[in-house]
Amino acid sequence: MTGPIDPVALAADLIRCASVTPADAGAQDVLTAALEAQGFTVHRFTSGEAPHGPVENMIAIRGQGAPHFAFAGHSDVVPAGQGWTAGAFEPEIRGDLLYGRGAVDMKGAIAAFIAATERVQDHAGTLSLLITGDEEGPALYGTRAIIDWLDARGIRPDMVLVGEPTSDKRLGDTIKIGRRGSINAWITVPGTQGHVAYPHLADNPVARLVRILDRLQRWHLDDGNAWFQPSNLEITDIEVASGATNIIPGSAGARLNIRFNDVQQGAALEAEIRRIVAEEAPRGTVEALISGEAFLTAPGALSSLMSDAIRGVTGVDAEYSTTGGTSDARFLSQIAPTVEFGLCNATMHKLDEAVAVEDLRVLADIYEAVLRKALRP
Amino acid sequence: MTGPIDPVALAADLIRCASVTPADAGAQDVLTAALEAQGFTVHRFTSGEAPHGPVENMIAIRGQGAPHFAFAGHSDVVPAGQGWTAGAFEPEIRGDLLYGRGAVDMKGAIAAFIAATERVQDHAGTLSLLITGDEEGPALYGTRAIIDWLDARGIRPDMVLVGEPTSDKRLGDTIKIGRRGSINAWITVPGTQGHVAYPHLADNPVARLVRILDRLQRWHLDDGNAWFQPSNLEITDIEVASGATNIIPGSAGARLNIRFNDVQQGAALEAEIRRIVAEEAPRGTVEALISGEAFLTAPGALSSLMSDAIRGVTGVDAEYSTTGGTSDARFLSQIAPTVEFGLCNATMHKLDEAVAVEDLRVLADIYEAVLRKALRP
Repeated sequence: MTGPIDPVALAADLIRCASVTPADAGAQDVLTAALEAQGFTVHRFTSGEAPHGPVENMIAIRGQGAPHFAFAGHSDVVPAGQGWTAGAFEPEIRGDLLYGRGAVDMKGAIAAFIAATERVQDHAGTLSLLITGDEEGPALYGTRAIIDWLDARGIRPDMVLVGEPTSDKRLGDTIKIGRRGSINAWITVPGTQGHVAYPHLADNPVARLVRILDRLQRWHLDDGNAWFQPSNLEITDIEVASGATNIIPGSAGARLNIRFNDVQQGAALEAEIRRIVAEEAPRGTVEALISGEAFLTAPGALSSLMSDAIRGVTGVDAEYSTTGGTSDARFLSQIAPTVEFGLCNATMHKLDEAVAVEDLRVLADIYEAVLRKALRP
Repeated sequence: MTGPIDPVALAADLIRCASVTPADAGAQDVLTAALEAQGFTVHRFTSGEAPHGPVENMIAIRGQGAPHFAFAGHSDVVPAGQGWTAGAFEPEIRGDLLYGRGAVDMKGAIAAFIAATERVQDHAGTLSLLITGDEEGPALYGTRAIIDWLDARGIRPDMVLVGEPTSDKRLGDTIKIGRRGSINAWITVPGTQGHVAYPHLADNPVARLVRILDRLQRWHLDDGNAWFQPSNLEITDIEVASGATNIIPGSAGARLNIRFNDVQQGAALEAEIRRIVAEEAPRGTVEALISGEAFLTAPGALSSLMSDAIRGVTGVDAEYSTTGGTSDARFLSQIAPTVEFGLCNATMHKLDEAVAVEDLRVLADIYEAVLRKALRP
């Protein structure tokens, strides 16, 4: 390498790889080259099968022994969509911004990881980067497979920092110390079709479905707690088979999602949904998918270290948050205290995704400060 | 005319005219020829415009003064649909049955009207046939226009018998002395689209709609009365805009129908629907269509005359009923006591619609007996 790594240039190199999940498109080759040049040992493997695989995963390790600090992230991105001002995979700086798919979620943060690790060559313990190509898809073959790989070798980080774009209004204002869990359910209620003039010959599935949905809506899940909002249920879709004027339909269904805090368990929520459906519609069925349980890394050493680093570099007092969607932190938190911190998320998953060039440089400084605290020699 | 009218042959002549509503296809020419031959004066006029018109209507009148007895019916039919054993508009007798679209609803009954009027030439007062080509469609330009025509000339029947297929298991078992009213409503609830992870930034219209529908379902309309079932509400369709996993949709709507008895008024029902929607969804809207108010011709002279005639010809004791769908009796009952009596309705609106040849002959005998009682010289 000639000269220190510029996180902006490295982010641009990564954006140039059209790694739309689960494709890699050379992104992990770029990372491997940069990390091996810094003395990391890079382990790569593919996992899974079509249609959601194969997925490229990589684990880069430098040093040994405790403590073990891990940066975690993903090199895949969501699809570009139509309507970008310039090419989604042709990184371009216009004004103060670097444009491109993945600029904030999260190729920019990975570039900042690698700029930071280059500056902190002399660290105690073990430093690793856990990078998957399967976070934006169903996340079947990504971080779970990396955890299996680590387990099989008896490797377990002591602290994990996921580089998701957690900042809201300005870089540094939000650290995520937990995430809610998520369960999706699809309820189907069969009925008996008929004419509205002869309801005794029919069995209106919409009537049963409305009673189910009303009970689900009235269900008081919890009041939240110090770190979490109350759990929340939303009905997102209703479908009625061949709905027509004056015809009682033959079946009806609804989709719902619950975002739940750490007071709840996905399986217990699923059981309650099934109980209500069975009471109102004995022939009703429920398909449920728990995409993740809630987790919390209670405020402590890791979050303090993180907020101290942010304050030292930017003067900003970060808030601890548990809001928002799911991330791979739900898996990593099962093996080690895990927090998430990264860029401003305003443009993530959107057209003309862009990161402030200055934010990328400041983020590298913050990650550097974190490393110096976490792995002080 | 040579020899008395055979209702089976006349029904076949009518079936041969493919008068799928609002088309006439020559059906009223067949009726006009038969009625003029019996000394009726036939008035014909068209009403309405595309797409539900123009509609052929006819009023045939014989005699003068009181009492005025009117047979009422329609010469249009519902579409044939695919899958008939033989042609829907190629009348055919197979075994004991005459097959063809309209055989029971209600070209068979009109043929029986005309066979009966031929046999009762010597009657008191006024005898009329009120025949429209717009009963099976939206009924905008049919019986309403006939009533206007009569009103404009100061003509008002004293008794109306509509020849709808009211019989259930056997010819003569059921006379309809009333019908429920019907109101359709379409409720639309706008919301604010968003992601389930950020419900505070969204306004889930499904949540509001479910509360509305639950309240509507719990609404106790009435307990019915001596002649009517309780009024009944059915939700027949729900639509959610761009329903997708994890997306709170931007709008949601539902369709419902109320079949209501004579305790209720359509306008009051509509007002209550609007009140509930406004309470749960201030931005919600309601489109309502009252297709007819309930009516009852309380058991009395006309229904007794009808059931006496049925018992005299068949030995069957007819039941008085107010069940089933709507018919043009809802309009005619506003100008005179109105009952409905006709063939067995098992095959009406279905493939291979068919009438028992013997029933057509017996129905002509019943209508003849009615006429002899109603217009006794």
